[in-house]
Amino acid sequence: MTDKINDIEAASKILARLPGLGPRSARRLILHLLENRETTMTFVLESLQGIKDSICQCGVCYNLDISDPCAICSHVGRDSTKLCVVEQVSDLWALERGHVFNGTYHVLGGVLSAMDGISPEDLRLDKLLERCRGNNALQEVILATNLTVEGQTTAHYICDMIKDFPIRITRLAHGIPSGGELDYLDNGTLSAALKARHSF
Amino acid sequence: MTDKINDIEAASKILARLPGLGPRSARRLILHLLENRETTMTFVLESLQGIKDSICQCGVCYNLDISDPCAICSHVGRDSTKLCVVEQVSDLWALERGHVFNGTYHVLGGVLSAMDGISPEDLRLDKLLERCRGNNALQEVILATNLTVEGQTTAHYICDMIKDFPIRITRLAHGIPSGGELDYLDNGTLSAALKARHSF
Repeated sequence: MTDKINDIEAASKILARLPGLGPRSARRLILHLLENRETTMTFVLESLQGIKDSICQCGVCYNLDISDPCAICSHVGRDSTKLCVVEQVSDLWALERGHVFNGTYHVLGGVLSAMDGISPEDLRLDKLLERCRGNNALQEVILATNLTVEGQTTAHYICDMIKDFPIRITRLAHGIPSGGELDYLDNGTLSAALKARHSF
Repeated sequence: MTDKINDIEAASKILARLPGLGPRSARRLILHLLENRETTMTFVLESLQGIKDSICQCGVCYNLDISDPCAICSHVGRDSTKLCVVEQVSDLWALERGHVFNGTYHVLGGVLSAMDGISPEDLRLDKLLERCRGNNALQEVILATNLTVEGQTTAHYICDMIKDFPIRITRLAHGIPSGGELDYLDNGTLSAALKARHSF
């Protein structure tokens, strides 16, 4: 077995490098697929090949969709006076799943990080600047980067970059999450929630 | 987005049903694949398609391999006097990874379970009986089912089934795993280890 089924071994190694999978879960996944070759495995391969062929990156906001510009950018019902800046497509999807925002987006494609050597040129900041300059209707830029050191650094950088435009710059509120119990929250969250307290 | 990117949604739903994945990890996986479409995604699709086309089930032991009979069954260096009965192909692979066994295998394809409605006809027991009957060289059947109620029930069933053949029937030892600390082990393991104690 050691020298002959290197196809399975090779596939396991490729899958094991994907986010959320390791050697054991990759092997388990492959076994499950091979044991359901005509059903599950066929569906998985067809659907992955399908999105590989059909999904493209939106040239405006960098969302992933079947059309360019994407459904959000080309939707007439979306409020183009608001632009929400997020780190990744997954963040955009999270906001969309919540049905909490009806404006448009800009996906940076990462965050500034000295540690990982990611500088402003590596993000889609020039394109964001262009969008701020080119859209006279734009009234508000919402900085929805993550509440990490890198996310906040990036938010500050963007704030500096676009502060001269007649645009309101906001960021998401920080505080106690829904269902959050004080006893289980970290000091940073408690401190932010206390600082941002408002009248009842 | 809600109505248009249903390709991605559909693919997420298919992946989310795979073992070890859920809705969130499936979405994360798909995003990672789409963001690395020409590299990772191509490799993943090619390798999965490759094993889908090349891997078949061994007609002797029910292992998955590129040939039938599989590399283990057709290997002249393997000890065909010993037959190790396992529940799943993953168990066979685990033993092979350990390089601890040089005999042959028989994959049952499951365990007896009244709860899940799995009866002896649903497992490859008739084929096991056939192998015991057909192979005069066979000296030992090792029952390597899991140490669960179902695994042990299945082992007892097989033991009953083949007890009239002139074959030694053994099962894996139960006890404290390597590196195991008594304080963290369950009572069943401790009890089994104590019962099976031997002179130092």
